[in-house]
Amino acid sequence: MAKLLNDRDIEFQLYEVLETESLLQRPRYREHDRAIFDATLSTARNIAAEYFAPHNQKGDANEPTFDGQKVTLIPETKPAWDAFADAGFLASHHDFDEGGSQLPEVVLRASMAYFNAANVSSTAYSFLTIGAANLLKSFGSDELKQKYLAPMLDGRYSGTMALTEPDQGSALGDLRTLAKPAGDGSYRLFGNKMYISGGDHELTDNIIHMVLARIEGAPSGVRGISLFLVPKFHVNDDGSRSQRNDVALAGLLHKMGYRNTTSTVLNFGEKDGAVGYLVGEPNKGLGYMFQMMNEARIGVGLGAATLGYQSYLEALDYARDRPQGRHASNKDPDTPQVRIVEHADVRRMLLMQKAYAEGSMALCLYASTLVEDANTAPDESERKAAAELLDLITPMVKTWPSKYGLMASDLGIQVLGGAGYTREYLLEQLYRDNRLNPIHEGTEGIQGLDLLGRKLGPKGGDGYAEFQRRILSTLDQATGMETCGSLASQLKNALSTLQSVTSDLQQQLSVDPDHGLSNATMYLDIFGKILVGWVWLKQAIVAEKALASGASESDEAFYKGKVHAARYFMSWELAPLEGYARLLSEGNRSNLDMQSDWF
Amino acid sequence: MAKLLNDRDIEFQLYEVLETESLLQRPRYREHDRAIFDATLSTARNIAAEYFAPHNQKGDANEPTFDGQKVTLIPETKPAWDAFADAGFLASHHDFDEGGSQLPEVVLRASMAYFNAANVSSTAYSFLTIGAANLLKSFGSDELKQKYLAPMLDGRYSGTMALTEPDQGSALGDLRTLAKPAGDGSYRLFGNKMYISGGDHELTDNIIHMVLARIEGAPSGVRGISLFLVPKFHVNDDGSRSQRNDVALAGLLHKMGYRNTTSTVLNFGEKDGAVGYLVGEPNKGLGYMFQMMNEARIGVGLGAATLGYQSYLEALDYARDRPQGRHASNKDPDTPQVRIVEHADVRRMLLMQKAYAEGSMALCLYASTLVEDANTAPDESERKAAAELLDLITPMVKTWPSKYGLMASDLGIQVLGGAGYTREYLLEQLYRDNRLNPIHEGTEGIQGLDLLGRKLGPKGGDGYAEFQRRILSTLDQATGMETCGSLASQLKNALSTLQSVTSDLQQQLSVDPDHGLSNATMYLDIFGKILVGWVWLKQAIVAEKALASGASESDEAFYKGKVHAARYFMSWELAPLEGYARLLSEGNRSNLDMQSDWF
Repeated sequence: MAKLLNDRDIEFQLYEVLETESLLQRPRYREHDRAIFDATLSTARNIAAEYFAPHNQKGDANEPTFDGQKVTLIPETKPAWDAFADAGFLASHHDFDEGGSQLPEVVLRASMAYFNAANVSSTAYSFLTIGAANLLKSFGSDELKQKYLAPMLDGRYSGTMALTEPDQGSALGDLRTLAKPAGDGSYRLFGNKMYISGGDHELTDNIIHMVLARIEGAPSGVRGISLFLVPKFHVNDDGSRSQRNDVALAGLLHKMGYRNTTSTVLNFGEKDGAVGYLVGEPNKGLGYMFQMMNEARIGVGLGAATLGYQSYLEALDYARDRPQGRHASNKDPDTPQVRIVEHADVRRMLLMQKAYAEGSMALCLYASTLVEDANTAPDESERKAAAELLDLITPMVKTWPSKYGLMASDLGIQVLGGAGYTREYLLEQLYRDNRLNPIHEGTEGIQGLDLLGRKLGPKGGDGYAEFQRRILSTLDQATGMETCGSLASQLKNALSTLQSVTSDLQQQLSVDPDHGLSNATMYLDIFGKILVGWVWLKQAIVAEKALASGASESDEAFYKGKVHAARYFMSWELAPLEGYARLLSEGNRSNLDMQSDWF
Repeated sequence: MAKLLNDRDIEFQLYEVLETESLLQRPRYREHDRAIFDATLSTARNIAAEYFAPHNQKGDANEPTFDGQKVTLIPETKPAWDAFADAGFLASHHDFDEGGSQLPEVVLRASMAYFNAANVSSTAYSFLTIGAANLLKSFGSDELKQKYLAPMLDGRYSGTMALTEPDQGSALGDLRTLAKPAGDGSYRLFGNKMYISGGDHELTDNIIHMVLARIEGAPSGVRGISLFLVPKFHVNDDGSRSQRNDVALAGLLHKMGYRNTTSTVLNFGEKDGAVGYLVGEPNKGLGYMFQMMNEARIGVGLGAATLGYQSYLEALDYARDRPQGRHASNKDPDTPQVRIVEHADVRRMLLMQKAYAEGSMALCLYASTLVEDANTAPDESERKAAAELLDLITPMVKTWPSKYGLMASDLGIQVLGGAGYTREYLLEQLYRDNRLNPIHEGTEGIQGLDLLGRKLGPKGGDGYAEFQRRILSTLDQATGMETCGSLASQLKNALSTLQSVTSDLQQQLSVDPDHGLSNATMYLDIFGKILVGWVWLKQAIVAEKALASGASESDEAFYKGKVHAARYFMSWELAPLEGYARLLSEGNRSNLDMQSDWF
């Protein structure tokens, strides 16, 4: 079976670091036990290995085609979709009485990581459907839910999120798709959407588009955007499929990677308007969509983490297997070559990969425990704190794995050298697939503005206070520990850098927002490094304690690796922060002062 | 005509920064004048635009095929090769009496950059031929030169460099291709070579492989390697083509990019041995090959710089054209959208691209003036100093553009967002093409070892002393200048960091070479940043002076851009160095201490 992730690490994250078993205390999970969590993970792993992994490279080499009538995917995509749906994964986070298995968020996210690892582009159809269904469930009327939700949970229908338009990109407030009231409570939509993933295919009986549009006469900007459900096919009251709706595929986009996910240009209302149904209240669409986007952002982070993770595992296998060269101190050409993992520079790359990949994975799984706590923590204040912290860190959960996971893919190619640049090895595809992640669901620049401009702002927010409380508590835990004690003091220095740069930027923001925000992306990067540094310290504390209390031989190597990776992180990854923070604190104007005609 | 490079910038580098006209004083260039240099550049630009650029994307989408008998390239490749050869570019650095045009290195390198910009993979055939011909000219016997050199200079034959073998990779000392004396002065070669670019095709009548092999009974390791000329076809004494030599194409490798350059696996001696002719003396092959590799390393740097440069120009065009969003301080959705070049974060990315692309280009052109001076400077001590400095900086000339030029390509995609990820825009290809550069002609790790272990070593070298002399002289020039004065003091701080980290590492090297070399790649990165910082300061000094003495309106914007990019560089690019240098100075052992089973 293909090695998709390091199972020992996933187990470590879930049960040793994140203490997932403690969820069994909560009423919602009373009927579960650890065996059920493990069985879920193992089902995911098996289906991923059996139905998704085998066609990952085939899907890349044979991207979807459109003959003007229908979209064709490689045939392996459909059985994979079916296996995912049949195992109940489209519904598993829903309640028992809704047909779900009421599983905790973190168990499901970890399960999803196995699918990502097996085949990120075939998996996307399912993930989009889960997100669209959540949106419908949260904000749709009972009537809409009755008609469309069940088939999205059992795999008969799939879903999309249709936000972007050709002339608007990240500036959602400028979207122009128009919704005219039809008089019968429904609307007719007219407009064009672009980069809609999963926007057309034949995997399912129907595709449910969750579309942002502006009701005729609505205010301009973000305050006039509403959410509509627009099915590809009309549905009769008995649930059977009727005519095509007026939604047409204008064409497929051809991407660098992620190729088995169709990326589409969709025309709504080429004829008499695409029939759409308002979801929730008028003009509140963007707020609703953000629920889905925030989920999707954790999903992007997890996808990027997973691709980086696989890149690490592929490079590690190669490095342990490939003999080449000798140690620098050995000048005797008649001695045998060593495996390249023995070379310090190869270790450097693998260590960076490990720090990025496992750190990203740990971050995303931690974020999913915040989603969990925001929903199911017993205490109201705990739910609120989790929600606020999640809100704060979502920009980093999306961007850090996207940036550093891609670097892990890049480093993987470098470990393989010439071989890594050929399509004979999987890394070439992982690198191309992973390049999407810094772009979709909000670019790095957008996330920086979101973090500094919205989540913090001139006054900071409760999430920031909560972040500081929690990281300080981890630092306390490390006090007196042999290795973690010094790691904690390195992280503490970085934290105090963050605190002062944050207040300097808040000061700048209050004087001149354009200036204050002009280095937001670098601030995001600094914050992200400290956040992941924290995540690494938490892992190292667990590992150092486990080592102290005695571990099996293989566990000993595993825990030592965790401690050493944390040590690497606190030294090398935190090293540049002070230099950058100084520029932020002094309000460096390079970006702001550059003029268009000077380029 | 396609915009391949910023012509104004190339002119600035050649005539304002590098003072190329001063070469006209040297006897070798007595018959030239600036008009001839300009005409050479313009010929290159025209041929590149007419014959190379139009099939760049087609060559990417239709990679070479091999039917078991012959290799097929897209048909546009041949007329491009012919146009390059017919214009004399295969020979133009050679003497007049050898059929060359005796042009200075820097003019030719700048000309080559236009070809790289137009189509890096179709151009590679020519560049490899130039390198192979240089090797033959420098070390081949008169007999070999008579037979093979002229057709390599006029385009009838092409050339390759055949070093790598499947089981040896970067560790050249372990190569196993065997050369048995045939008794008639020639040899019979047996072995397999891999990743041989241009190793087979039908562009030319013949392909001349410059092959590293070990003569039967030669010492093991690097001291037993000899250089052989192995033609694809035997050549009769009258110059006509005879039988195939025993060199067989085992297969083509399928690459991420650079696709119109064949990458081959070649089998030498499947039957009775490939006939090869010794070039130079036995067992000195690696030294000879290093001449070609050092040229090739500048060539890789230049190629990477060029791809980064194009990525910058493509992103800049897009950013100036694409309206999206508003300034952060403008909350009114009814105001018009601005071009994305107006957004601070987009400017950040473009400014980074400019700093990387133009800095890389300036570095490579500067290196080519060192090649020039090493050969034609009037004074022996000047020639020696140039050669030593070139030797020192070659690892950075190869790696800095490869790393940061690729980042420029990456940033270009990010500027375009979703569009950049599609194959509808050139950036997608530029990114894939550019990913090769950190790998071939010595990976980043190999270059780090070369710099620290060989070029500097425990005692430093004359090149390092020369580097310090020259950079201090530039710092002196900036004294008293309004902007450059403060840029110089930033660079001076970084230089003193470099000096202390260098001596700390030399100390570590003298105690324990494995430890001293274990962070060599990071040292290479620090040195490279300071080297390029110097290159930027030199540009800024020229620009600030030009501004002070009055410039045309368009020149004013150009010069201001140069000064501002240098300002960006000294702030943001030098900012992290101190943090990293501290780890190097204290001899951080993260890479060294990591154990294989801890991963």
